[in-house]
Amino acid sequence: MNQAINQYLHENKENHLKELFEFLAIPSISALPDYSGEVKRAADWTADALRRIGMENVEVYPTKGHPVVYGEWLKAEGKPTVMIYGHYDVQPVDPLELWETPPFEANIRDEKIFARGASDDKGQTFMHIKAIEAILQTTGTLPVNFKFCIEGEEEIGSPNLPAFVEENKELLASDVIVISDTSLLDKGKPAICYGLRGLCGIQIDVKGAVSDLHSGLYGGAVQNPIHALVVIVNSFHNEDGVITVEGFYDDVEAITEDEKKAFAALPTTDEQLLEQLGLKELHGEQGFTTLERLYVRPTLEVNGIYGGFQGEGIKTVIPKEASAKITCRLVPNQNPDVIADLLQKHVQERVPAGVEVNVSLFDKGHPYVTPFNHPAIQAAGRAYEKVYNVPTAYTRGGGSIPIVAAFDQILGLPVVLMGFGLPTENFHAPNEHFHIENFDKGMETLCYYWFELEKSL
Amino acid sequence: MNQAINQYLHENKENHLKELFEFLAIPSISALPDYSGEVKRAADWTADALRRIGMENVEVYPTKGHPVVYGEWLKAEGKPTVMIYGHYDVQPVDPLELWETPPFEANIRDEKIFARGASDDKGQTFMHIKAIEAILQTTGTLPVNFKFCIEGEEEIGSPNLPAFVEENKELLASDVIVISDTSLLDKGKPAICYGLRGLCGIQIDVKGAVSDLHSGLYGGAVQNPIHALVVIVNSFHNEDGVITVEGFYDDVEAITEDEKKAFAALPTTDEQLLEQLGLKELHGEQGFTTLERLYVRPTLEVNGIYGGFQGEGIKTVIPKEASAKITCRLVPNQNPDVIADLLQKHVQERVPAGVEVNVSLFDKGHPYVTPFNHPAIQAAGRAYEKVYNVPTAYTRGGGSIPIVAAFDQILGLPVVLMGFGLPTENFHAPNEHFHIENFDKGMETLCYYWFELEKSL
Repeated sequence: MNQAINQYLHENKENHLKELFEFLAIPSISALPDYSGEVKRAADWTADALRRIGMENVEVYPTKGHPVVYGEWLKAEGKPTVMIYGHYDVQPVDPLELWETPPFEANIRDEKIFARGASDDKGQTFMHIKAIEAILQTTGTLPVNFKFCIEGEEEIGSPNLPAFVEENKELLASDVIVISDTSLLDKGKPAICYGLRGLCGIQIDVKGAVSDLHSGLYGGAVQNPIHALVVIVNSFHNEDGVITVEGFYDDVEAITEDEKKAFAALPTTDEQLLEQLGLKELHGEQGFTTLERLYVRPTLEVNGIYGGFQGEGIKTVIPKEASAKITCRLVPNQNPDVIADLLQKHVQERVPAGVEVNVSLFDKGHPYVTPFNHPAIQAAGRAYEKVYNVPTAYTRGGGSIPIVAAFDQILGLPVVLMGFGLPTENFHAPNEHFHIENFDKGMETLCYYWFELEKSL
Repeated sequence: MNQAINQYLHENKENHLKELFEFLAIPSISALPDYSGEVKRAADWTADALRRIGMENVEVYPTKGHPVVYGEWLKAEGKPTVMIYGHYDVQPVDPLELWETPPFEANIRDEKIFARGASDDKGQTFMHIKAIEAILQTTGTLPVNFKFCIEGEEEIGSPNLPAFVEENKELLASDVIVISDTSLLDKGKPAICYGLRGLCGIQIDVKGAVSDLHSGLYGGAVQNPIHALVVIVNSFHNEDGVITVEGFYDDVEAITEDEKKAFAALPTTDEQLLEQLGLKELHGEQGFTTLERLYVRPTLEVNGIYGGFQGEGIKTVIPKEASAKITCRLVPNQNPDVIADLLQKHVQERVPAGVEVNVSLFDKGHPYVTPFNHPAIQAAGRAYEKVYNVPTAYTRGGGSIPIVAAFDQILGLPVVLMGFGLPTENFHAPNEHFHIENFDKGMETLCYYWFELEKSL
């Protein structure tokens, strides 16, 4: 890679920050209808930024919600095509009083950019734009082809993006998708998350008598919906933390020895986690380490339970109903539809006497994994290592980024999650910020990556 | 009994109703501080009513809360002394818009008196006053001695009455306590409830991490407080509905063959209960009938459970805490203090890994029973039978009336619960009412009772 590219980035840093601050000044809060004009303004700003660096066929595509910004540069004939996904929308800013400086007036303190969206995801999307500008300005061309797909609804669950992708398969056809919307493992420790868990959820509603009953007048003679719910909920795990739903683990891919080694080599320790969470001990499926439990094992968690009296003191009632909300995190090759069926069957086979039980389904998401020895992943790892001078960690994520699974499902492409945030940067919270060190190193890393990718794919 | 007494009641019915309506017009809502002047006015009204019929040493005794009205008539030398307990306070009236006529403007429709307090308990307390007036006016004397103890805090749990009773043991010394604050079994079917269950409750608070956690990022690696709570709650019963807390049944009195027969003879059927509650099947401790489960077996019911997300849809959270509220109904000779200890021990021995569990105690109440072959109970049964012309049912109550247990504990006296309401009369609800048939027959029954009691005790 040309040394001149780094120099270009260095010399233009002030201008780049100034331009980024303009982007950060637009309150593009996708969740709040009052801000839809601002969201549109951020889309237009993004499109202009793409046009300014030389992207072609730049367009703001309307959807049923907020628009998708598209732009491309396809002049690297015979070379791979990279689709860069990002988002120009941001989270709400409440509670505003906890911000040390206004969320939409970006502000540098202590070598960090403070603003809503600084890290998630305007900052990281902007880095992609400026890294490509640096290569183009310095070398006059690019080592690979690019397609930008920058949406405005990520913070509200990307309700319209899957349909947009489905309808524009040809427009978006590429060899690899690169997303910078995640974090390094820790300061100075690059990481590539190459797998995310899927999601599948149910709500269990247990109904008893027509109304709440006096526990003195009826207690002992009727089934208490809370007791019935507890019997059902308690049946999902055994004492070893193993999920006891029949067939639940049937399609789970076994963890490979390579992955076991890679996870064991990660610097994250149980002690760190205990301290961070204020716990005395961890708990999970027997026979697996904490990271294995988080990365490659499926889970079943009750996210909410409720029934009867919740106020101060006591009310001697047998409630007429009780409910629980449950979600499973799924791993390859579990199918959310199959798991949803197994969960429903499990519950229906365990309905206690004297109550009626209804099970309803929530949205589902497929698990995603790009094999960590995929050339696009390995090239990204080498790019990180050139800039950060330490080995890249290969992790999997416990959470779900539905759009990643959607890209995987619809386009069938490898996805590289190459993030530059830090876990401590208050995404979604007051005083969101982004470390300038990673703004600089990140753009350098991206530039290296495109040249590595040219050689790898 | 003198026929003239009945005639007196008949001839004065209009006046009695008019007087009762005056009593019912006072909004003596003990729960609402704004009404404390009205509560006091009801106390004074009660005291005046006692004076008017010839009670002596009538006094309105102040307490830390609302006052207690006392009055006595002790001229039946060598005869037993009856303490009549009742209350002049009433429940709040919300929601007011559901009342067909204003709650404090008593109104007769369909041979029922509609007003807050009509049945619970101004109407029934007033019947005692007028029954005694009838005997005194007709015969010039009374067959037994009387002490009235009419309080103003029953609807808020009688917080100050136990102390008043404790401090006035001599003043209140009697041979039997008679309370009319319950119901007939059904229209035309008199019943005496000779036992009530006690109460003992705990709250279980399970605490996990310092904050709610993202179920994707941490799910599988930490104990979920809801899971831990469910494990504990599920441990209280076995599949046969038997409570599995060690020692829980140790002091429970065995049911006698006489009682078994008496309960089996009651007209209440499981089918009625199923229809009333909108249930397809009942559920309870194996080996006992429904009435045995309600009257003489202890229970453990979860009255409330809560933790995590309760809104529409889904939130993938592992909550930092979850709680359950539990109460036990106790039967003779279970001691609420002993049971509370057993419950705490049961929970502490079952704390799952990775969480902290706190158990706190609620107010406790002793169970109460007056043997159903006690002469005061049997005399009451005969009095009912003379007026209602059907056999009296001997029942026990599943609920707890704390003041009954307190009288039992402090004064060591038999308590006769001789009610004239009907289970359908909307106590504590809009459109509370009282059947005039039972107003008439009830006073007649009481008059018979006092003459029966003279012969029995």
